[in-house]
Amino acid sequence: MSNASEQGPTEGLRGRLHEIIFEAETPAGRAFDVGLLWAILFSIIAVMLESVASVRAQYGSLLLGVEWFFTGLFTLEYLLRLFSVSKPLRYARSFFGLVDLLAILPTFLSVLIPGAQSLLAIRVLRLLRVFRVLKLSHLLGQAEVLLTALRASRPKITVFLGTVLTIVVIMGALMYVVEGQENGFDSIPRAMYWAIVTVTTVGFGDITPKTAPGQFIASILMVMGYGIIAVPTGIVSVELAAATRHAVDNRACPACGQQGHDLDAHFCKHCGHGL
Amino acid sequence: MSNASEQGPTEGLRGRLHEIIFEAETPAGRAFDVGLLWAILFSIIAVMLESVASVRAQYGSLLLGVEWFFTGLFTLEYLLRLFSVSKPLRYARSFFGLVDLLAILPTFLSVLIPGAQSLLAIRVLRLLRVFRVLKLSHLLGQAEVLLTALRASRPKITVFLGTVLTIVVIMGALMYVVEGQENGFDSIPRAMYWAIVTVTTVGFGDITPKTAPGQFIASILMVMGYGIIAVPTGIVSVELAAATRHAVDNRACPACGQQGHDLDAHFCKHCGHGL
Amino acid sequence: MSNASEQGPTEGLRGRLHEIIFEAETPAGRAFDVGLLWAILFSIIAVMLESVASVRAQYGSLLLGVEWFFTGLFTLEYLLRLFSVSKPLRYARSFFGLVDLLAILPTFLSVLIPGAQSLLAIRVLRLLRVFRVLKLSHLLGQAEVLLTALRASRPKITVFLGTVLTIVVIMGALMYVVEGQENGFDSIPRAMYWAIVTVTTVGFGDITPKTAPGQFIASILMVMGYGIIAVPTGIVSVELAAATRHAVDNRACPACGQQGHDLDAHFCKHCGHGL
Amino acid sequence: MSNASEQGPTEGLRGRLHEIIFEAETPAGRAFDVGLLWAILFSIIAVMLESVASVRAQYGSLLLGVEWFFTGLFTLEYLLRLFSVSKPLRYARSFFGLVDLLAILPTFLSVLIPGAQSLLAIRVLRLLRVFRVLKLSHLLGQAEVLLTALRASRPKITVFLGTVLTIVVIMGALMYVVEGQENGFDSIPRAMYWAIVTVTTVGFGDITPKTAPGQFIASILMVMGYGIIAVPTGIVSVELAAATRHAVDNRACPACGQQGHDLDAHFCKHCGHGL
Repeated sequence: MSNASEQGPTEGLRGRLHEIIFEAETPAGRAFDVGLLWAILFSIIAVMLESVASVRAQYGSLLLGVEWFFTGLFTLEYLLRLFSVSKPLRYARSFFGLVDLLAILPTFLSVLIPGAQSLLAIRVLRLLRVFRVLKLSHLLGQAEVLLTALRASRPKITVFLGTVLTIVVIMGALMYVVEGQENGFDSIPRAMYWAIVTVTTVGFGDITPKTAPGQFIASILMVMGYGIIAVPTGIVSVELAAATRHAVDNRACPACGQQGHDLDAHFCKHCGHGL
Repeated sequence: MSNASEQGPTEGLRGRLHEIIFEAETPAGRAFDVGLLWAILFSIIAVMLESVASVRAQYGSLLLGVEWFFTGLFTLEYLLRLFSVSKPLRYARSFFGLVDLLAILPTFLSVLIPGAQSLLAIRVLRLLRVFRVLKLSHLLGQAEVLLTALRASRPKITVFLGTVLTIVVIMGALMYVVEGQENGFDSIPRAMYWAIVTVTTVGFGDITPKTAPGQFIASILMVMGYGIIAVPTGIVSVELAAATRHAVDNRACPACGQQGHDLDAHFCKHCGHGL
Repeated sequence: MSNASEQGPTEGLRGRLHEIIFEAETPAGRAFDVGLLWAILFSIIAVMLESVASVRAQYGSLLLGVEWFFTGLFTLEYLLRLFSVSKPLRYARSFFGLVDLLAILPTFLSVLIPGAQSLLAIRVLRLLRVFRVLKLSHLLGQAEVLLTALRASRPKITVFLGTVLTIVVIMGALMYVVEGQENGFDSIPRAMYWAIVTVTTVGFGDITPKTAPGQFIASILMVMGYGIIAVPTGIVSVELAAATRHAVDNRACPACGQQGHDLDAHFCKHCGHGL
Repeated sequence: MSNASEQGPTEGLRGRLHEIIFEAETPAGRAFDVGLLWAILFSIIAVMLESVASVRAQYGSLLLGVEWFFTGLFTLEYLLRLFSVSKPLRYARSFFGLVDLLAILPTFLSVLIPGAQSLLAIRVLRLLRVFRVLKLSHLLGQAEVLLTALRASRPKITVFLGTVLTIVVIMGALMYVVEGQENGFDSIPRAMYWAIVTVTTVGFGDITPKTAPGQFIASILMVMGYGIIAVPTGIVSVELAAATRHAVDNRACPACGQQGHDLDAHFCKHCGHGL
């Protein structure tokens, strides 16, 4: 629950700051987290609104002010984080340290490189900071079960994705030959993009087969896509059922200490000791 | 089964009315429910037909008459409901009380504010009144199992929806930068709309990536959308299996104490003792 | 396995014909079934090819000949079926009797009503005759398991479809008001068609929301559609698991004769007798 | 693990070559496999890039050189394979032997038949050669479980696909009659293509119903497609659960005889006896 062990225990002002900023067990720590959550959400809404041409035309200066306000706030927070941890460099190079830096950098850079509209979009990465706050919530346990299920499914999902990719490459090349440039399939990569659009049942319709053989091949691809969606679903169902089952029983053997016993087990399956 | 306890038992005419209008155990009550069901369905069909320009042009006055007929009917019903319950205000402020009011209000308001076409569409909310009638049906048990499964899945589904939303925000901002205004991605919210269209495999095709990097990112998003649909499906399958299992039985055999008997079992399947 | 009991046992020529036409246990009966299967498939391919303008222009007279050949064949078969059963009227009014008649009627009617192109399309219903032949195949058991699962899921699927329909009606009316006639949502039924296209994740893109609020509502509808597909999938998975489990054990109790015992049952759960 | 038994043991240079080319247990054999994997991937990327008009215009001669380099490499490899096996003809006629030949043939043929662009696309079949290398990897076990599940589901999936095909044929013919040529449904095969696009929820939108009855039928088809996706998913889930379970264990306890132990169990979980 506590991040203290990560950055090492600290004392005095730094220790107090660390408790507020990095932990959520004290009222001040919890208030800081809630405040941060709202600041992140509002700043992202501001970034989004700024990207809408009509809103930027009318409220451009207001949004600029809001942006600098949040950038100032996040800069202050970043400096306080650097100050409150015992190993600032280790924090700065951690995943969340980089995300924290990316949350403020684009605004400063936009002064140096004017017109760098695309830089500003990086600021939506602030959203990732929400996970820093949420990692202390009760949803974590559920996320853990989901992750366990997905991790256990990884080899099967790799096989599945490999099969899908093979189908996409071969079907894409086939459609490039059959339909050709005049129907929008003007290169194998583009035909592969079409094959992905089709096999995932997205079906934008920006490129569509026009010839009879092309429509026949497309039909086969669609039925394949419609059918093989069953495979990852089945995989995750089975692994999730296993993850849920295992989550229920977490008894450790009193003799050998090993876990992973079934719910109906009366004896340790590793050493035979009674549970 | 009876709603009487909700509004309190009443006597005489009010009691009789309450029995007919709110309950379904007497022949009169059941007849009232069936009649109401048909009235709701016909009035909604009339609202739908009225919205079709060609039908309105030809049968406009007939539909207006039908509309006022049903409004009169539902107004009478609403007044009778108010009269027959012991606490009319409590009924009026309940969910179904508000739905009952919304079913008649738009027609009356359309006289005061002529041309308020959009007001009339509110009348399709009458459809919600169907659930008032159906709540006494045999489908309720099944709906209960489904709801139990969905309620148990809620934390997992929250985590899942949060992940999808994060993907949508970040992918939307990325596509806004990569594709830009000239390809239809003219703001982050619109690019997010596109990302939702894509990740859910709907794929309208009103906005599509035109550049090679845009199509590459879109391909990744599509495969993600195609794959992560497996997660809610797996979640609901597992929870539904649990909800169904619990609905089945939890009797233990009085002789050997083992559980897991079917609902229709009269004897223990392990030792043959009567349950 | 035998249909004889259905139409009653017959003797002599009629009995022999019945055996060949309706049953599949003799070599002649099996040969008849296989021949019929090919005749059905070829006649349907001919109907399909005839509908293609360019093929009709070139091979029109050949296809007409093929059509009359198959019509003659199926007419002969129909008359033989009528002759070989003991109750011809009962056969003629049965489901497959009507399908057999519909397989030949359109061709004869096309002589009386020339140019009735649409009549000819009815002939694809000949495809249903395939099921008459296949009903004796080894796939029947599998179809039975699937049907048992779907039948057991029916109340849950009814609740599910009712919910989807309610969402479609209310979302359709909402989009009719929000987007309006100028964006293609020109009536509530059309807006409902759009809502079905969206919630089922088909996403044709023939009608799409153009306004920001419309795209926001559409996003919610898409996420709903993406999520609630999990519900029928979960339902069918659970019921199919149950149907498969029950299909495995089909022991009847020696004492009371009742079935439906679990695989691990040693005693009848109905009467307690040892299995 | 070893392919030696397939082609028979060989000695001297041939035996050494066989070990390197066909097996992966020696460091040289593993290095050969990794090198081959990279050669396949790079040659496929080259084929893809060559199909892009703008890349071909600029780097055409470079890509031609790359192509001939890889063709030379694969030709050398093919000859070495032919030399190192004891029965070259048997190898040449095997599936992977043909794939190996198809990987080099198109480039040579492109000299004889100039401009045969489509021939070059055949070279993406080189991708299939990846599976030759990967068949020794740890993913094989997972693929085996998936294949077992799919094989067990085959009769059910046949029934399912047959039902989908019947729906597609009948709905296609119906839409051909209802919508007709003027709305893009200009033949039954094209209308069937549309029905597949719709029932699989792909929804390109290249052909869409324009009339009210057509949109109504399309709505039914979409809801069917949305619902029946649950069937293959349920089938695969159930079979995958069974395949996973069987992969786990079928040891019985020598003391109490009960089964259902985990793969890593050394002692019976019911009585504690060593397994």
